[in-house]
Amino acid sequence: MKNELDALMQANDIDVLLILGAAAHNPAMVYFTGVVHVSAADLIKKRGEPPVLFCNPMEREEAARTGLITRSYNEFPFMDLLKEANGDRILAAALRYQRMLASLGITSGRMALYGSTEVGAPFMIINALQQLAPGLTFVGYAQDPILMQAMQTKDEAEVARIRRMGAVTTEVVGRVADYLTSQHAKDGVLVNSEGQPVTIGDVKSRIDLWLAEKGAENPEGCIFAIGRDAGVPHSAGTLTDLMRLGQTIVFDIYPCEAGGGYFYDFTRTWCLGYAPDEAQKLYEQVHSVYNTLKDEFTMGRVLADYQKRTCELFEAMGHPTVMTQPTTEEGYVHSLSHGVGLHIHEKPFSGIGMNDLLVPGSIFTSEPGLYYPSRGMGVRIEDTYYARPDGTFEILADFPKELVLPVRQ
Amino acid sequence: MKNELDALMQANDIDVLLILGAAAHNPAMVYFTGVVHVSAADLIKKRGEPPVLFCNPMEREEAARTGLITRSYNEFPFMDLLKEANGDRILAAALRYQRMLASLGITSGRMALYGSTEVGAPFMIINALQQLAPGLTFVGYAQDPILMQAMQTKDEAEVARIRRMGAVTTEVVGRVADYLTSQHAKDGVLVNSEGQPVTIGDVKSRIDLWLAEKGAENPEGCIFAIGRDAGVPHSAGTLTDLMRLGQTIVFDIYPCEAGGGYFYDFTRTWCLGYAPDEAQKLYEQVHSVYNTLKDEFTMGRVLADYQKRTCELFEAMGHPTVMTQPTTEEGYVHSLSHGVGLHIHEKPFSGIGMNDLLVPGSIFTSEPGLYYPSRGMGVRIEDTYYARPDGTFEILADFPKELVLPVRQ
Repeated sequence: MKNELDALMQANDIDVLLILGAAAHNPAMVYFTGVVHVSAADLIKKRGEPPVLFCNPMEREEAARTGLITRSYNEFPFMDLLKEANGDRILAAALRYQRMLASLGITSGRMALYGSTEVGAPFMIINALQQLAPGLTFVGYAQDPILMQAMQTKDEAEVARIRRMGAVTTEVVGRVADYLTSQHAKDGVLVNSEGQPVTIGDVKSRIDLWLAEKGAENPEGCIFAIGRDAGVPHSAGTLTDLMRLGQTIVFDIYPCEAGGGYFYDFTRTWCLGYAPDEAQKLYEQVHSVYNTLKDEFTMGRVLADYQKRTCELFEAMGHPTVMTQPTTEEGYVHSLSHGVGLHIHEKPFSGIGMNDLLVPGSIFTSEPGLYYPSRGMGVRIEDTYYARPDGTFEILADFPKELVLPVRQ
Repeated sequence: MKNELDALMQANDIDVLLILGAAAHNPAMVYFTGVVHVSAADLIKKRGEPPVLFCNPMEREEAARTGLITRSYNEFPFMDLLKEANGDRILAAALRYQRMLASLGITSGRMALYGSTEVGAPFMIINALQQLAPGLTFVGYAQDPILMQAMQTKDEAEVARIRRMGAVTTEVVGRVADYLTSQHAKDGVLVNSEGQPVTIGDVKSRIDLWLAEKGAENPEGCIFAIGRDAGVPHSAGTLTDLMRLGQTIVFDIYPCEAGGGYFYDFTRTWCLGYAPDEAQKLYEQVHSVYNTLKDEFTMGRVLADYQKRTCELFEAMGHPTVMTQPTTEEGYVHSLSHGVGLHIHEKPFSGIGMNDLLVPGSIFTSEPGLYYPSRGMGVRIEDTYYARPDGTFEILADFPKELVLPVRQ
């Protein structure tokens, strides 16, 4: 949680967090600012002190909505800096950072870099700043032990927001199911009331619309993939594909609050009309593994243990898995779980070798699946769980798990 | 245009472009890939050769949709690299870049960095790569003379997509106007058929919905700001504000194709019911400057000249401007124009000191405005123009310019 930040900074010998970019679609920044209309900013947080947000004066009013201490770039007029830098914009920007930091009493120490923005200029600017301020040491993490660690456990307000996104998500999924079952079948494909085939594109445009109605968006799209595409876990689906009866449809939806707030992650697999025996069997196997895991989640355990467990369960059923065949593209081919928050994928992670724990406050997915693109099918079931302070695990949004969606002929 | 890239690389002594990040909401990447469901990739383009897209094998099918040469990270198994790097993930990632580049015959030369993603890890990885491959020189631009320069002129397919977004934008603006004028006024505020006040939030949620219906999104939000907020150019508006009659409403909408494709940019200023004399006068002044500029745009001229011209015109009317008072927050307080493409703000830029030209293929805004937050008002009019190959300038989407939207009492 956010209140762990100073301790995490201390434990990792970090004196300052420097977060670049906009206050939207930028998890590190939004963690502090919320989603506001500030398109370029720098947030500087010294250990033990509240964060300070530097921004353009034109965006001062929006910045003030964050409730943070805000300051204006105008304190360091860029034209003066540019002159001092002999027209070198990279150096001028580095000088501005040097002055901003100095104004907060920061002239040395270890600074962790964050923020999602264009990487080219910051790479040059931070290296230039390093030359200007040799007492500073810059750190960027492949596996972040500070912000991502703090984000790994959610406070009540965060849980409420993710729960609300869960309600939005399952409502939209329900509307998609209603839409599909209110059409009818003709020659083995779903057609609308005018007899026109329904395409994946038709369904996806409704998903976008219904999410927008609820104040959500899906910045990373969603997966609505049928047949062979369903057998490729990250195929998003082909917009022109028809909705053929008896084929597996993997519907993986991971929307967030508008502007890049908290996410939810959810998957169901459907067959329209009927399920062929092979699809039914795969589905039952995935469902059975899902249920076994649900009963086995235990507070304090390493999440990666459940990835191992999932592989073992699927291997016992005769499926190849990434445990024994790391590059397999058939069978169980991905990870079981990841945390969900301001990132769709965040800690805890379940990859083998990771040691993230299931601890109270974690919000994480459970998403076993089986994939056989060569047989034109794939199955995944996913819910988002909350590891509650009372030690129990709660699925944050209920939704039925039925493979077959009935369709009128 | 894209076909200028090799020449621009040569002119800037760049041998390789390296673009990081996802194939969505990432202009540099999307310029080559289009919007596809590839969440992490590296695009490497050698001068004189077609780009090569490296991605996760799980996303191979989506990557193939780009039509580019695609290769898998699995060619360089990360676990082996991690072992070689003694568990240092930054170094392992740098080793992977070194191998990827070497596999394309790149072991030295000047490489330009692009892509919008988290900045911390790439900062460390590229610096580690620099140690591994001292023959490489990395360049990041504050003002990019290659990709942004190529993007500054659009080919026919790009113009068609921006024109289509213009049609979507103006259709949504029309629906907003229809919605507002179909309500009625009570005690000086707009109320709906149940007599409930209409808020900025109500309007904004409809904007999101109607954009989604059209396959568009507004990742950076939109500005729908009334009264004093309208007087602060980048205030997005206060969701709980009521729609008071006789107050200026600045409606600036800048949506893009879903997933982070091409943008459009458009602003109108409205008063519901009636316009007070002062607002009417400001509006006429802005409209007059807009029209003067429209007639004066000339192919081959420096766009910044029109910023100067705008300041002169407003100064002659007695308004402060950024030309004489660079930090003024009243009067004319911003730039006149910017290019529009995969970025909402791209070349050509109109800031004083910039030397971007109006050349055939440019798509740019004209957006004069006047702001008086202390008097609770602001006015801006904006259209997006296409500098046509035939030397004329075309507004890409027509829409009436009327200040007052009539409202029934």
